Amino acid sequence: MPDQRSIAIQFAHDHQDRFLEELKTLLAIPSISTAAENREDIQAAATYIANHLRATGMEHITIYPTNGHPIVYADYLKAGRNKPTVLIYGHYDVQPVDPIDLWQTPPFLPTVRDNNLYARGASDMKGQVMASIDAIDAIVHTDVLPVNVKFLLEGEEEIGSPNLDAFISEHKALLACDLALNPDGGMIAANIPTIIYTLRGLAYFELRVYGPAHDLHSGVFGGVVHNPAQALCELIAGMHDAYGHITLPGFYDHVLPITPEDHLELARLPIDEPYYLAQTGAPAIWGEAGYTPAECAGARPTLEINGLLSGFTAPGSKTVIPAWAMAKISMRLVPHQDANEVHQQLVQYLEEHSPKTIRWELTQMTGGPACSTDRDSPGVQALSRGLEAVWGIPPVFKREGGSIPVVASMQQLLKADSIVTGFGLPDDNIHAPNEHLHLPTWQRGIDALIHFFYNLAS
Amino acid sequence: MPDQRSIAIQFAHDHQDRFLEELKTLLAIPSISTAAENREDIQAAATYIANHLRATGMEHITIYPTNGHPIVYADYLKAGRNKPTVLIYGHYDVQPVDPIDLWQTPPFLPTVRDNNLYARGASDMKGQVMASIDAIDAIVHTDVLPVNVKFLLEGEEEIGSPNLDAFISEHKALLACDLALNPDGGMIAANIPTIIYTLRGLAYFELRVYGPAHDLHSGVFGGVVHNPAQALCELIAGMHDAYGHITLPGFYDHVLPITPEDHLELARLPIDEPYYLAQTGAPAIWGEAGYTPAECAGARPTLEINGLLSGFTAPGSKTVIPAWAMAKISMRLVPHQDANEVHQQLVQYLEEHSPKTIRWELTQMTGGPACSTDRDSPGVQALSRGLEAVWGIPPVFKREGGSIPVVASMQQLLKADSIVTGFGLPDDNIHAPNEHLHLPTWQRGIDALIHFFYNLAS
Repeated sequence: MPDQRSIAIQFAHDHQDRFLEELKTLLAIPSISTAAENREDIQAAATYIANHLRATGMEHITIYPTNGHPIVYADYLKAGRNKPTVLIYGHYDVQPVDPIDLWQTPPFLPTVRDNNLYARGASDMKGQVMASIDAIDAIVHTDVLPVNVKFLLEGEEEIGSPNLDAFISEHKALLACDLALNPDGGMIAANIPTIIYTLRGLAYFELRVYGPAHDLHSGVFGGVVHNPAQALCELIAGMHDAYGHITLPGFYDHVLPITPEDHLELARLPIDEPYYLAQTGAPAIWGEAGYTPAECAGARPTLEINGLLSGFTAPGSKTVIPAWAMAKISMRLVPHQDANEVHQQLVQYLEEHSPKTIRWELTQMTGGPACSTDRDSPGVQALSRGLEAVWGIPPVFKREGGSIPVVASMQQLLKADSIVTGFGLPDDNIHAPNEHLHLPTWQRGIDALIHFFYNLAS
Repeated sequence: MPDQRSIAIQFAHDHQDRFLEELKTLLAIPSISTAAENREDIQAAATYIANHLRATGMEHITIYPTNGHPIVYADYLKAGRNKPTVLIYGHYDVQPVDPIDLWQTPPFLPTVRDNNLYARGASDMKGQVMASIDAIDAIVHTDVLPVNVKFLLEGEEEIGSPNLDAFISEHKALLACDLALNPDGGMIAANIPTIIYTLRGLAYFELRVYGPAHDLHSGVFGGVVHNPAQALCELIAGMHDAYGHITLPGFYDHVLPITPEDHLELARLPIDEPYYLAQTGAPAIWGEAGYTPAECAGARPTLEINGLLSGFTAPGSKTVIPAWAMAKISMRLVPHQDANEVHQQLVQYLEEHSPKTIRWELTQMTGGPACSTDRDSPGVQALSRGLEAVWGIPPVFKREGGSIPVVASMQQLLKADSIVTGFGLPDDNIHAPNEHLHLPTWQRGIDALIHFFYNLAS
């Protein structure tokens, strides 16, 4: 006679088509959080998820308004007070879709090709949110859920979660939990289950350089004014030295060094130069001298140019000296860097290096610290055994280059460690055209989460 | 009894309102040559000018199609074979209007405020074209035109005149002339009539830097790929040294040095640091070490960034490593630089300085040499006396920083020197928002051209 977890897993397998259709319905909603014109779509996505949680049997479903996009809460607390409570975090908002012309199928027309589901948000992270709900759906239709669960689903992760910390602070009792599950991580490869134990933080800025009072004719005035686009390039070029080190004053002062143990753990991961060449399609790998690619992407801070804009950019030619030039600049932070300190370091760099021929304005957009989780905690072990049961091998423990500020918030505000995992793959093209989700891996992930909930209760 | 030229000038004064209305009608046509969507507007502008030349009494009016926008030809050859023939060059196309939100009144709704006529093309150069026609209009309504004139009006100057040289080559007999009048220059100030005796050339490029095969998540991949926006900035920053010299290999090899005589002539011009600060609104003047501002803007070559584009540029934040970055880069050339040589120098610079972590593509958009005109020729002297008659002071002779490739073409193909002048002012905002034409100066210009035609015949 099969045990209850096997019955739940069989239920999930029998309802794969429904799970996929429900995910496609959610993915068809263009819930881009950064675009004002998608405000109603964000509401529609929140409503859809709330209704779906209700249909799954969850309780206390509430759509909490915030100063920005709403937060969806639900819970199911029937396992008893002696069983652990898991707070499942997710976000239902997605990144913008530009450059739109590079999508093979429209980003909000979910399309299956070759075992992959193509749509904006398929991997990051509507697919992960729905996998979590689907695992619970399978259990509550076949058994009593063996742990208590709470859902906290926000709509502003892709714009830096500006209202999440306040919400958590104001709802500490509602959100009280023994641990958090955050499936916004990802896997190293489809055959390598992955648990993330450190995350980089983020500091994001917009830098504007101003020169002449208005655009000038480059023939009449070329040679006597400092071109703001050139000045911006000169400032940006100076932010790294020839060895890939970041030159902001004091930038590395508080960086937690990589220990010999970290070095060995990271060396075990199959993420080396050939891996990154294949994943990125770049002509060659680049990085900070003295560190391996896995260390550069996970354990060292970085400074990236996320956007550039100045002057005439349409097809053709226009002989203009632009009045201004803009760059979006962001840093990935490691323990124990602080986003506000990095802001001051960037200001100091600009003060020290900006010529008097231009003036500049710096705006801090978002920021949050790096953080790390205990690999030996019961929750991590419960997920580790669940992943091993499905994939047949124990998971690897990875340092993640991306940032999930909510992990730090839950540590600080709820004293809850997050188990960061997920079933997205490195080539899912998250934040890029043709984002997709590998469906066989996603379905394995649902099975692994069913194991996780049973393991956690036993 | 007044002489004929006085009668013609009086006629021009009496018909100022009509001349202004006719100019406004032409300015209302958005004949932007670089934009595909304005193709019909370009045709409309050509048709309007052809009809207007016919109304003025010109003959052999023809709209010649080209591979791009049409060329309007007309002539009036009744002065006799012993009188000089002047080929009047102009262009009826205009620059794009972005950034559109900085215009105080719509660019194609010509509006008079404080003696200035605001519209795209008012100064560059529909106003100058109409001033030339108006001067002839005044003479032919009051006298027999004392010289032979031909009009050559193109619609592609702002995109580098890609079809003009072929047209001139194929119509050498039609365009045969003793000298050319090119009113696409400009004045140093409203009280300083100006004749331009050298012009800088132009070489315009689009540089694209490619990194990863597609946009990447800056957290997941930040630190292991060379950000193309950063790489582009590094390449651009290296194109000038700390003294404002351009670092392309061999860039100055063929540059005609500034002679002591040139130095003195340029020092006479009232275009110094305070002048350029007032004209540009820049925080401080910049330039090549060892040269005055007038020399930097007129007698030395420059390299400008005309545009930058990469990654995410909308409001908000997106944590992306862009797949590519683009810059529009143009050089102003002096005698005896060659645009194709400069192209090779830029290629060599990129080959020598591009890291293997990116690849690049360079497209040459337009190019033409610098050129100069004899200050003692009869035509220059005829205009000089005309300008002095109206303004009361002799004109200054200026080295122009801008490029008028047709001046070189007419020297090479028609053996005709061009007299480059015009009645635009430095703060007319050509190629920028709120372009305008100073109407009192424009009306004086019409008078000066009437003098010019009479002086040339005598």
